[in-house]
Order: sequence, then C-alpha cells, then structure tokens
Amino acid sequence: MIDYARRLDNARTRMAEQNIGLMFLKPGANLFYLTGIRRQEADNTDANAYGDWAVGGYIGLKDGITLTAPRMGGAFFQAEAEDKPWFESVRLILESEDPEQVMRQVISRFDLRGKKVALDDRAWAQTVLAFRRLLPDTEFVLASAVIEPMRMIKEDAAIELMRKAGQITDSAFQRALAMLKPGVTELEVAREIDYQLKLLGADYTSFVTGIRFTGPGRATPSALGRVTERRLLPGDSVTFDFGCVYQGYCSDFGRSAFVGDPPAEYIKIHEIVLRAQREAMQAMKAGQITASQTDRIARSVIEAEGYGEYFTHRLGHGIGVTVHEEPFLDAVNQTVLQTNMTFTVEPSIRIPDRFSNRVEDVVQVTPSGAVSLYTTDHRLYVIG
Amino acid sequence: MIDYARRLDNARTRMAEQNIGLMFLKPGANLFYLTGIRRQEADNTDANAYGDWAVGGYIGLKDGITLTAPRMGGAFFQAEAEDKPWFESVRLILESEDPEQVMRQVISRFDLRGKKVALDDRAWAQTVLAFRRLLPDTEFVLASAVIEPMRMIKEDAAIELMRKAGQITDSAFQRALAMLKPGVTELEVAREIDYQLKLLGADYTSFVTGIRFTGPGRATPSALGRVTERRLLPGDSVTFDFGCVYQGYCSDFGRSAFVGDPPAEYIKIHEIVLRAQREAMQAMKAGQITASQTDRIARSVIEAEGYGEYFTHRLGHGIGVTVHEEPFLDAVNQTVLQTNMTFTVEPSIRIPDRFSNRVEDVVQVTPSGAVSLYTTDHRLYVIG
Repeated sequence: MIDYARRLDNARTRMAEQNIGLMFLKPGANLFYLTGIRRQEADNTDANAYGDWAVGGYIGLKDGITLTAPRMGGAFFQAEAEDKPWFESVRLILESEDPEQVMRQVISRFDLRGKKVALDDRAWAQTVLAFRRLLPDTEFVLASAVIEPMRMIKEDAAIELMRKAGQITDSAFQRALAMLKPGVTELEVAREIDYQLKLLGADYTSFVTGIRFTGPGRATPSALGRVTERRLLPGDSVTFDFGCVYQGYCSDFGRSAFVGDPPAEYIKIHEIVLRAQREAMQAMKAGQITASQTDRIARSVIEAEGYGEYFTHRLGHGIGVTVHEEPFLDAVNQTVLQTNMTFTVEPSIRIPDRFSNRVEDVVQVTPSGAVSLYTTDHRLYVIG
Repeated sequence: MIDYARRLDNARTRMAEQNIGLMFLKPGANLFYLTGIRRQEADNTDANAYGDWAVGGYIGLKDGITLTAPRMGGAFFQAEAEDKPWFESVRLILESEDPEQVMRQVISRFDLRGKKVALDDRAWAQTVLAFRRLLPDTEFVLASAVIEPMRMIKEDAAIELMRKAGQITDSAFQRALAMLKPGVTELEVAREIDYQLKLLGADYTSFVTGIRFTGPGRATPSALGRVTERRLLPGDSVTFDFGCVYQGYCSDFGRSAFVGDPPAEYIKIHEIVLRAQREAMQAMKAGQITASQTDRIARSVIEAEGYGEYFTHRLGHGIGVTVHEEPFLDAVNQTVLQTNMTFTVEPSIRIPDRFSNRVEDVVQVTPSGAVSLYTTDHRLYVIG
C-alpha cells in the first residue's frame, strides 16, 4: 500500500523549506502521486467541462486538501476523494459561477503573506494567468521543485506495483507473440496487446502501443499513431514497444523478433544491443555512476561496433507514475543514480529500410547494479 | 482544402487589432488549426522529450513561423512543416542546449516593444514562467482571444471534413451493431469500434470510446476508461458514445439500443429524447437563438415529461478540431448561434440501474435550423 500520508508530510516539509505556502496540482501525475486521485484514460483531442481550467488540488502547509472539480463529471472526483481522509472537501464549480471567483474563495483560506505558490509544471496558461491576477504580488515556482526529487526514488510499495505492471506486460507479450504470423498487420498486433493488457487488469496503456515491421525497401509510412496497416512479411524484423499502467504505475517494454532465418548481421546486431543493455545495467550501481555516464557506456558498445549512427535516442528514462520522468539517461543528465530509482534501459539499432532491433527493460537500481522488473527472455524471437 | 494562408491572415489581423506582437502555440489543437501541424495520438501518462516544454509555433505579425521541436522526435515536426511555406524554419532543441535560451533566441527576432504576447490557453506553467522571465515587462494574454472566434465558425472545407468523419462514424456504428449479441462485453464492442474507425481511414478516436450497458440492478462499476468487462444481457439498454478524427476534424455520435422487447417506458423515453433533439435542432436558426436558449428548449421537453432529473449534462457543445469547444449549449452560454457553427445535440435520459438512452448528432447551423452531418437512422435499435 502506498503511504500517502507520508508522501504528503514529505511534500509539506519541502514546501516549508522552500517557503511555499500553497501548491496547486491539476488532475494528472503529480496529483495522483501525492494524493491518490486517479487519472482517467486520455482523449485524443481536447475535451472540456465548464471551469475545468480552475480544477485541481489546493495543498497548503497543513489541514486537509481542497479539491475543485467540474460539476459535470464531478462525481468521479467525489468518489476518488471519498476514502481519502487527507481531503477536506471537494468543491464543485457550477455553471452559474465564475471559475476565477471559485479559485479566489479557495485561495483565500491560505495565509500566503511572504510565501511562494507552486504550480503544477503542466498547469494551463489560463490557470497561471488567473493565479497572477488573484495574487499579483506572489512569486510563482514550479511544483516539480517539491515533488520531482520525491518521485525519483520509489518506495518498495511503488516498485511492487511496477513489478506487477511488468508481469501484465510480460503476459501480454506472450499473447502477442502467438499472433505474429506473416500477413498480420501492425495494427492487429497492437489491438490485441491493448485488449490483453486490459483483460489482465491494467488500467490502460502507459503510452500509445508501438509495433514496427521493418524490412528491405519498405519505408516507414507516416502515421499519427505508432502502428500502420503494414502486413508482416518473411524477412521482416519486428520491434515491440509498449507498456501499461497498473494501479497508477507504469511499465515500458521492448523485445525484437525476426520472420524466417535471420541474416548473420541481424543476429550480430541483436547481440550488440543485448550487450549494450547488459553492460549499462551492470554499471548502474547506486551512488557510483551518473545518468549520462550510464548512457555513454551503452552507446560506446554500439559505437565500437560501428553502429553508433543508428542508435538515435537516449538510453532510457526514469519511469514511475508516468512513463517518462526524471532522471533521463541521456548525454547531459548529471544525476547520480540512487537505490530504488527505476529506469528503462532500451538501446536500439535501427537501420532504415533494413533492420530494427531494440530490447527494453524497466530496471531497479541497487548497490550492486540494476535488475530488471520483467521475466521475459531477452532472446531474439524467430518466427516461422 | 483548408486555406491556411487565409486563417493566418485572419489571425494576424486579430493580433494587430489586439496589439499582440507574438503568439505562442504549443503542439495541439490551436497549432493544428492555424498551421496544419498535426497532432499525434495521445499517451495515457506524461511522455516527454528534452526541452518539450519550450516547443511550439512562434507566430508574429509577419514573416514565416518558427517552429521549435525536440531533437528526439523532431523528424515528425520537420516532415509536418516541410510542405507548408508559411513556416520559415524548424529549430530543433538539442540536449546540449538550455531550452530557455533557445526560447530567448527565437523571441529576440520579434519586435515586442509595447506589444502583448498571446499564449496558448493550455501552454504549460513551465513555459509561462519562462516567458515571464524572458519578457518581464510584457503583458500576457490567452491565444483563445485571437483564435476562438475563428474556430467557432467553420469554413465549408472544414464542414466537409467533419461530414467525412461522420460517414466513417456511421459505418463503424453499423459494424458495431452487428456484434451486439448477449454475452458480448462493453470492452469488446469498444475495441471493434476503435479498430473499424482506423480501418475506415480515421486518424484515431476523438475521445475515449464509451459503450454502456444499463440494466436492472446492475450498478455501473467504477472505471478509468468509459467501458468495462460487463456482459450484455437481455433487458439491457445500450448507449453508444464515440467519435473519430478525420484529417484533424472530429465526430461525436450517439444512438441507443435495447436487447429484447423494450418495455413501454423505455420506448416512451426514447421518443422523448428524440423529440428533445428534434425541437432543439429546429430552433437552431442562425442569428435567432442563443446557446442557452437552445439548451432550455430540449431540457423543457424532458422536464415536461417528468424526466428532468435524469438529464444531467449540457445539451451539447461546439465541435471542430477538438471534440469539445466553444460555444457550449449549456444553461449560461449567451452566444448567438451563427451559420456554420457546428454542435453536438445530445439529450439523454439515464435512470441509474434501470435505463439509459441518448441520441447524439453533430449538426450544422443554417438560417432555417440545424441539420445533421450523419445519415444513421435515429430509431431505437432492438437486438435479438
């Protein structure tokens, strides 16, 4: 069980240290992390309800949290707050009210003299401009200054939920593998994965499922999602990149397959990718390496084999209540890795129109290196 | 074909009228509307790339637009801008750069003395605070003041795309109806709809597909999406609520079905809902009615029959490049309807644990009333 009371205490200690008297968190990752208000599945275009831009959790240094919610759809927020004693009230914003005046009422209950206000990094500009009108002399800072250092280190209970998300992902991968036959489309495989994740108990996907078939002379068509109606052919390599959310915690997973007898170069590429991942994970000892050093280790393996130009992205990223979060395993991040940080480690070699190979695990940092939260074998899956 | 040059001219005229020297639009609905940069399918948890919070279109009163993009994933934005001569450049933000300094470089090219800067309403707080540091003496306003009045009135070309989105939706509904047999789950029906929408040429859904089975004594379980694994039983009523995006334009659709012989009260409810929709549509004559008056007409029909407490939401909403947009057909919106505004008209009667009924069309306002963009019959669909 996630200990929300402890998280809130920690956040308030940090707020006091940074002279922050009020933190506003819109519905989303930070509000879920700190208070347990779950996130609904994402729409592909902007949806809205009256006053939604003023909606969120208003968290002071003491007392219960006030959550504002739109009247239409407010039942969801009321139900979410009901079993959480750290909420003092859910204030619905009625269509007959000016949302900015509701904000004024809520804010007036906090003593903000000489104090800063922290805003969710992704709070809307509309909200920020209203806060400035309501508190013209106040200094505004980002809520990540309070919450991000907390989110980077996972409690054991959070890691257990991520391990469960990983188990669901492992199982969905086995079911997807079973349908990987020539003629199937990327879209069909992705649809099956998304469906199986839900049947297995996931809340939803953690990001848009990516299935890519790569083969000679078959340029990747433009797509707004991460799959197309391309059909699988003998000689194609297949990369899986998907994950789920389980009780609010994310997985992100990758393996590679080949249809027919893989050429010697593809087998070699797979081994290079595996070695890059393995060497990075072995080096990820708590307190002994930075994020950018980790990226460099994996990249050096691939560069030494002459494939550096085909590894075009960062080695990995923090993962927890969001699929991508600090710290990032990239060329510039100087964070020293610590016990119970969790990262993806996902080297790839993608040669356009020829091969694509990637292996990705979510790993937990320990004093003796990183360990995967998955059980799926890292081998090259050969189809047919 | 959407005339982007004309939209940009109109926006710049409005900017000049409002003394706005620069408009910042993050990737999303407004940027797509004004410049054609498409939106990628939405992730369920925050994804990010280095510098993403500084990414967007920087639009001045003249000259080409500068688009900033993250290096990782930047190829998408480069491809999107390539065939659009109104973009001057795509500036990738490298991991070796401070994103705020890239913003400073881009902003320095605009003459903002004595002028305001308009920010996308949903630009992130992180972006807004950076803008304030870079332009400490500048007044910031919301981009909606420029763009929203434009987006409310659809050009004929936009309505044709919405009609096509409607045709795809009509077809997907027919295919979903064919699988509506006792034993099927809400999730299975939703999965089929989502899949068929893509096969029929949609970009993706416009919002999370909602399928609801309602029956005696079967309370709606809590769900983070809009479907559950509940199985269809004889005596259930079924409501469909889904839509797609076609070339960036949205549909939003609803019909109702019943499994087995519908009771007399359910038939009556369906007729009341249809009458509420019809009377509202007939009254939606350009220049002759406000949004709130329209809501009242439909609500009065349902109230007069004694079901007012079971119609719990606004009558409808504007729709276009987003599924929900101004103006809203609610109790307070005073906008006078105009020719080529497009709305959903979606009265419902939902009696918990008994019946659910809703009919929803996207309609175009004309001088003689509103006309539906769909061809699907409004009858009660009786199953089995």
